[in-house]
Amino acid sequence: MTGKFISLEGGEGSGKSTAIECIKAWLESKGIDFIVTREPGGTALAEDIRALILASRDETVDDMTELLLMFAARAQHMSQKIRPALKNNIWVISDRFIDSSFVYQGKARGGDLEILNTLTKWVVGDDRPDATLLLDVPVAIGLERVAQRKNADRLDKESIVFHEKVRAGFLEQASSEPERIKIIDASQSLSSVSEQIISTLDALKSTWEESI
Amino acid sequence: MTGKFISLEGGEGSGKSTAIECIKAWLESKGIDFIVTREPGGTALAEDIRALILASRDETVDDMTELLLMFAARAQHMSQKIRPALKNNIWVISDRFIDSSFVYQGKARGGDLEILNTLTKWVVGDDRPDATLLLDVPVAIGLERVAQRKNADRLDKESIVFHEKVRAGFLEQASSEPERIKIIDASQSLSSVSEQIISTLDALKSTWEESI
Repeated sequence: MTGKFISLEGGEGSGKSTAIECIKAWLESKGIDFIVTREPGGTALAEDIRALILASRDETVDDMTELLLMFAARAQHMSQKIRPALKNNIWVISDRFIDSSFVYQGKARGGDLEILNTLTKWVVGDDRPDATLLLDVPVAIGLERVAQRKNADRLDKESIVFHEKVRAGFLEQASSEPERIKIIDASQSLSSVSEQIISTLDALKSTWEESI
Repeated sequence: MTGKFISLEGGEGSGKSTAIECIKAWLESKGIDFIVTREPGGTALAEDIRALILASRDETVDDMTELLLMFAARAQHMSQKIRPALKNNIWVISDRFIDSSFVYQGKARGGDLEILNTLTKWVVGDDRPDATLLLDVPVAIGLERVAQRKNADRLDKESIVFHEKVRAGFLEQASSEPERIKIIDASQSLSSVSEQIISTLDALKSTWEESI
């Protein structure tokens, strides 16, 4: 079995960090080689770009600027980290990937989806995730969780209307690609979320093994 | 007369900084309101992106990453500085602009010109420079001038073959758009270069005044 590419998606406070720990434990239990990475980021340069995107600043950030920075970071991440790992049969787990771009810059901010498709074709090509876990949580619950964190960054400060668009956008992505995107009910208890993730990963692994 | 947009282009050591001083003196003598800016850069965020592009680093910088960073900086520059100035009848003088992208990332590094055209359409649209002064200098002379500077950055360290491609690329740009791009022989003495710049600007101003 070659390296599989799994992305994790979800709005603010959907519990991605906890989910990553659960996925790591599952991969270790199966003896699978893997790396965990994130977007925007994943390499030193891409992390520098991430810092530019997330910084609070007086200057208005043009939507096209943000979009191109996201894809600049992604191009670096793909070429220097994701593609080399997959080629070496190492699984890649990415905290956020293309769906976040389509949802945040596209659906929630009204960005041009044709531009997003073109950038994705240039930067990602056919190296799309084999599977995506979408952690879905009602906005009120997600924001309550975020409020307990110390430092809210620029993207956390968006309005509730924006977060509702983000949630709807992710669910729309999932319904358009049900084979790839698996919805996890992240409003449940930690143990319930972990169980959902593990059973989803077990099912995916069986499917991939059957298709060899 | 509305604000005019003039870009300045040329390879390493072509004397752009000196040329900018000459252009500023000419604009002041005519009582024209103007700003001088540069690419990549021109706003606080765009200058931060510039620093990422020019930094020496161990990590290989993917060509697509560099290209998207350049256009992210340009999108910010266009939206926050160039377009607002031109709308307010302020002339914009930019040290480098789109021709540098077509020459450095495109012709010299073999980047996809269709991608460059698409990015330019998205980011610059119809707001192309009204005129471009190309400071042309033989590579040997340009590099000798650069060698006298203290800190060579990542782009300065490219090979002579690369710089020859850059020079040829700029001359090709000029021959494809002779109306917009005016070649200045920058191998001459400072006073000769200044005279060429001033007579070019005088001629452009007359043309623009006639076309009102």
